[in-house]
Amino acid sequence: MIGASIGHRLVLTSFGESHGALVGATLTGCPAGLPLNESDIQPILDKRRPGQSSITTQRKELDSVQILSGIYRQRSTGAPITMVIHNKDQKSADYDNLLNMPRPGHSDYTAKIRYGGYNDPRGGGIFSGRLTATQVMGGAIAGKLLLHTLDIQTLSYTISIGNVQTAVPTDITYDDIYKNDTRCPDQDAASRMKDAIVKARGSGNTIGGVIESITTGVPPGLGEPIYNSLESDIASAIFSIPSVKGIEFGSGFAGSESTGSENNDIYTIHDNKIRTATNNSGGILGGISNGMPIVFRAAFKPASSIAKPQDTINTETMEAARIQVRGRHDPCVVPRAPPVVDAMTSLVLADHAILTGHIGAVL
Amino acid sequence: MIGASIGHRLVLTSFGESHGALVGATLTGCPAGLPLNESDIQPILDKRRPGQSSITTQRKELDSVQILSGIYRQRSTGAPITMVIHNKDQKSADYDNLLNMPRPGHSDYTAKIRYGGYNDPRGGGIFSGRLTATQVMGGAIAGKLLLHTLDIQTLSYTISIGNVQTAVPTDITYDDIYKNDTRCPDQDAASRMKDAIVKARGSGNTIGGVIESITTGVPPGLGEPIYNSLESDIASAIFSIPSVKGIEFGSGFAGSESTGSENNDIYTIHDNKIRTATNNSGGILGGISNGMPIVFRAAFKPASSIAKPQDTINTETMEAARIQVRGRHDPCVVPRAPPVVDAMTSLVLADHAILTGHIGAVL
Amino acid sequence: MIGASIGHRLVLTSFGESHGALVGATLTGCPAGLPLNESDIQPILDKRRPGQSSITTQRKELDSVQILSGIYRQRSTGAPITMVIHNKDQKSADYDNLLNMPRPGHSDYTAKIRYGGYNDPRGGGIFSGRLTATQVMGGAIAGKLLLHTLDIQTLSYTISIGNVQTAVPTDITYDDIYKNDTRCPDQDAASRMKDAIVKARGSGNTIGGVIESITTGVPPGLGEPIYNSLESDIASAIFSIPSVKGIEFGSGFAGSESTGSENNDIYTIHDNKIRTATNNSGGILGGISNGMPIVFRAAFKPASSIAKPQDTINTETMEAARIQVRGRHDPCVVPRAPPVVDAMTSLVLADHAILTGHIGAVL
Amino acid sequence: MIGASIGHRLVLTSFGESHGALVGATLTGCPAGLPLNESDIQPILDKRRPGQSSITTQRKELDSVQILSGIYRQRSTGAPITMVIHNKDQKSADYDNLLNMPRPGHSDYTAKIRYGGYNDPRGGGIFSGRLTATQVMGGAIAGKLLLHTLDIQTLSYTISIGNVQTAVPTDITYDDIYKNDTRCPDQDAASRMKDAIVKARGSGNTIGGVIESITTGVPPGLGEPIYNSLESDIASAIFSIPSVKGIEFGSGFAGSESTGSENNDIYTIHDNKIRTATNNSGGILGGISNGMPIVFRAAFKPASSIAKPQDTINTETMEAARIQVRGRHDPCVVPRAPPVVDAMTSLVLADHAILTGHIGAVL
Repeated sequence: MIGASIGHRLVLTSFGESHGALVGATLTGCPAGLPLNESDIQPILDKRRPGQSSITTQRKELDSVQILSGIYRQRSTGAPITMVIHNKDQKSADYDNLLNMPRPGHSDYTAKIRYGGYNDPRGGGIFSGRLTATQVMGGAIAGKLLLHTLDIQTLSYTISIGNVQTAVPTDITYDDIYKNDTRCPDQDAASRMKDAIVKARGSGNTIGGVIESITTGVPPGLGEPIYNSLESDIASAIFSIPSVKGIEFGSGFAGSESTGSENNDIYTIHDNKIRTATNNSGGILGGISNGMPIVFRAAFKPASSIAKPQDTINTETMEAARIQVRGRHDPCVVPRAPPVVDAMTSLVLADHAILTGHIGAVL
Repeated sequence: MIGASIGHRLVLTSFGESHGALVGATLTGCPAGLPLNESDIQPILDKRRPGQSSITTQRKELDSVQILSGIYRQRSTGAPITMVIHNKDQKSADYDNLLNMPRPGHSDYTAKIRYGGYNDPRGGGIFSGRLTATQVMGGAIAGKLLLHTLDIQTLSYTISIGNVQTAVPTDITYDDIYKNDTRCPDQDAASRMKDAIVKARGSGNTIGGVIESITTGVPPGLGEPIYNSLESDIASAIFSIPSVKGIEFGSGFAGSESTGSENNDIYTIHDNKIRTATNNSGGILGGISNGMPIVFRAAFKPASSIAKPQDTINTETMEAARIQVRGRHDPCVVPRAPPVVDAMTSLVLADHAILTGHIGAVL
Repeated sequence: MIGASIGHRLVLTSFGESHGALVGATLTGCPAGLPLNESDIQPILDKRRPGQSSITTQRKELDSVQILSGIYRQRSTGAPITMVIHNKDQKSADYDNLLNMPRPGHSDYTAKIRYGGYNDPRGGGIFSGRLTATQVMGGAIAGKLLLHTLDIQTLSYTISIGNVQTAVPTDITYDDIYKNDTRCPDQDAASRMKDAIVKARGSGNTIGGVIESITTGVPPGLGEPIYNSLESDIASAIFSIPSVKGIEFGSGFAGSESTGSENNDIYTIHDNKIRTATNNSGGILGGISNGMPIVFRAAFKPASSIAKPQDTINTETMEAARIQVRGRHDPCVVPRAPPVVDAMTSLVLADHAILTGHIGAVL
Repeated sequence: MIGASIGHRLVLTSFGESHGALVGATLTGCPAGLPLNESDIQPILDKRRPGQSSITTQRKELDSVQILSGIYRQRSTGAPITMVIHNKDQKSADYDNLLNMPRPGHSDYTAKIRYGGYNDPRGGGIFSGRLTATQVMGGAIAGKLLLHTLDIQTLSYTISIGNVQTAVPTDITYDDIYKNDTRCPDQDAASRMKDAIVKARGSGNTIGGVIESITTGVPPGLGEPIYNSLESDIASAIFSIPSVKGIEFGSGFAGSESTGSENNDIYTIHDNKIRTATNNSGGILGGISNGMPIVFRAAFKPASSIAKPQDTINTETMEAARIQVRGRHDPCVVPRAPPVVDAMTSLVLADHAILTGHIGAVL
């Protein structure tokens, strides 16, 4: 289902609108027999929802997940799993006067062209960052499936906010990440990142940042050559998160400045297992996992909804206009994004583990 | 067809092996009525093939394309278009002794695990960069389709090799790019880039680089929200090119360090058309084209085949080993890659133009 | 999404279980701008739901549809349309003792093998005929889309029940079909069909029948050659209706006994339009519509849930067993099936009309 | 790839034209390690090719298969397998005068509308029955894969030609089928069938028939509920064979006249295995195999190319016309079709065996 779904065998379909009745997701292809209920999903949703801290939007969205199908006696049945979150705190009046004055950086103009003006404009409709809640719902199941069957785990965390950057050691834990509001496991950098967010918000502005993601436990042999390589499928999944404008695996853009002898990862034997001495490949060679951690970084642009007035145009009169975006918005989306990056990564890896037979149809 | 194809309506399937009988591609979903013959494809293939200049591999591959189906009286019929290039200059003996000693940076090890050792190892088999010729064949048709119907054109060119970088003005031409061997339209930088490649080769090493791609003429309204956004689909396509390890759209990673007021592209009216004053979005908002040029950059790692001896392991004896990659290899793949980047970009954009009805089933 | 979805561009995904919280469907790819609300769907659902007449099961299922996404200001937005029916009248205790004693003719045994016993067995779970309500929901939208854009309309009706058969003239109306409980537009035959159903029920038995479907207004040129021909896609869709075991287009099985000169449909000009004198092809040549009505017949087996005791086995003890299916079941599913056949046919034709550009992305 | 491919994980793409350079197929998703070379395919192609006997067309097509990719050291590599047959005996002049005078029963008119007249009309182009050779190529591999891994085998054979019908015992062999030119294992009926074909040809006419297919060795648990059921996928595959206009599984249309107590297959234990006493379901319940043989029948219309003159129209002048189809055509396509029915059935079952994990990624 072009545009509405992602995955080959484990497929997530997202539906709903920011200010509609609900947002929801259907996950198909989940093997039968996975222990599963709402408590596997809710804690992860809670890490994504707004209003968690002083540096996220103060909208109150409880984001309470409800599983409607595909579960029987607390186990996945193999049938489609539909999950929903009913919307609560919409204030649609905020958007009514913007119909013909597209907000810079938003999808208002492109959505209008694409759907002939019939799209739901309230809160961005289907384009809203709120739809990432549907990705987290599906990703939470994929994550549990990976952990339950192959002991695979994804950890994503903030490594830069604006121009505050840090390098993160590879042996961090989930707790390290969620110890502070920015989701940066370097607590000192996290403090400066928080300051940068507060400062941006204070000036009616927003800032961006970079999230790094490491997945451990991936066996060698997941992925496809040429098309649907792990890089292709992970990149496709990560770009489905609003605001993402770049991705790099392993040594990435910096690696393009190095030489082959520097960038090639030498094979070694460690505990009778095949490893590489470095991981410049990000765990992927020829599109296929090599047994090293899958590592990538995703660049998030500064959120488009700034409080400052901005120039725009009126698409009906074709004249210049000036707009001020109201409503309660995130000064920086990065702190809420790690669970979404985890989710999309887990979905891709679980899908490929099913494709290669590492995870069977019945657990 | 997971792993073998790309696209939704306009679908390219690649087949063949580096040292097999041929490499080929089938393009399905091409509208009927497009004027087409081998001369639309051969000149573009010629820009990709090895042996063009002193800084590419000296392998002699004529890469002569043959269209086998889907064309009647010099026009596309609407049926699948199969194209092949028969292989000529393989020296398979080069690879026989490497079966159990995976070359660092190559897919030898991951391919062996993925396919249980049944994969064709000669020259990398299906994983070979030689398969990019199949992408160029399909992309040449997509490119002609876009130009013929919507006056859309993609230009991709080198902007960095190793640590030689340049910023390129947006008004360059095809001739500017192909005036020198490095495909960098900045002729001065190109000269330094060539020196860097020659130097790397001289020391038995390789270097990487970055290619930028600009597509003009794209109407607003191409793409999908959430999944299969233009970013997702272009990224997926570009990562199908071997050696690519990163991609960024518009302001990309640098944009993540900026603020919303700096990064938002303000709408303006220009010649009674809606434009943006800057193009930090790379022409894509909410996954959908906004009418500005589509701009992205792709990072290529240094080629894995270096002449220097390297440490590796023997996967059978599980002991350390030492390997020297022989054969005729590119010291830098970047100069041969622009036609491939053009091809994959054209395939994605033509596919989306068909999806949205901008290009019909019959021309 | 293999097994959960049908369609290429207009895709229906069905979810939910017979005795779960709900059954639902998500329709993606519906063009933007179609006037739409629940009143377009409910009347068609009402023709399918149980308890309508003396010859259908007396279960009370109101089957009240609720649209949850994809509609804004009474028009489709282009985003996924999710619709649900909350379940009301489940009596799950009926099924608890049957877990290891598969009912003949049902999916109990095959579902258990397929899903390792984790499937929801209550009322057949995902395999239940109740899921046809989700098909009607999607089909109602596809039907409206076809009527609204191309004046295409499908009429499906009963032509045999058990051994009571009739031939139906081609100029019947919707009212002719729904004038009686059997949905046979030949009122005399309908009366005998009803008697046959009552008689079967009286003896604790069930009977099958045949539904014919005629779609008028189809322009020539819909469909694909070889794979995904109209016959392939319609057949695939019709076999997704439980109990269907056969389908034939045009002259079908009888046509296989005729000669080419009898079976070929001669072209004629009628009102300056190209027609055929007969319609033995069922409106499809080479997999593509020829402008004549699409005609097919589908065979429904007698419902598997008979009141009579039946021999079976115990899959745990591997010994013979005897079973009596309780609950309130249809003595014949055919009278409730015409809206489902309409739905699946409409979904396929609307999908192909989108594929060929007869229906655009925005209405 | 809509219209050009079939399958989910094991995907066959057909290309080429009747009078073009070749016909070919690419099979993707074949597991690695299957022993394979041309001799696995050629003998089956030989059973399909024309000119085998006095009752098939006398066109000389050697139909010599060549495998171009995906095989290394006589084993499948896991990469796409492309196979071709170069065309030899085309006489394209036969078709030139028919461009505006569509042959009744053929795809001439629908192809012209669908592709705006750009389709290759010679010999039907992509619509030609010649493309079934590409299906046999793919099916031969699927058949070997099923036999090699799960001891599954499909036997398809003629059970009626015109109005000569027979019932065939279930314990027949491949040799029984191919002992005579009609492929009917009942040798007495075969003789009468041959007479009927000779008689039809003698009067410048053609006749149709029915092929039955039995697949043994299918384990329970292959298939999907609702969509992509075995019935849906097999039906879709069988309708991709030109001339097929009907299909029924198990008791099929006749079963629709029976009662539930007659048609339900009672479970029994046989050799400690679960069987059913009858096989009215055709081995499929709820869309999933139950371990009994998969049984279906396909109705073939009489071939459209009759020697007798026929009425038609001129699509340019919109006036009545008269046409005589020349060339060398089959008086009945049924005798050449059993290998094609075998092929399509094997492709579907192998695909589902991969989907459910019964066949792994590496053999």
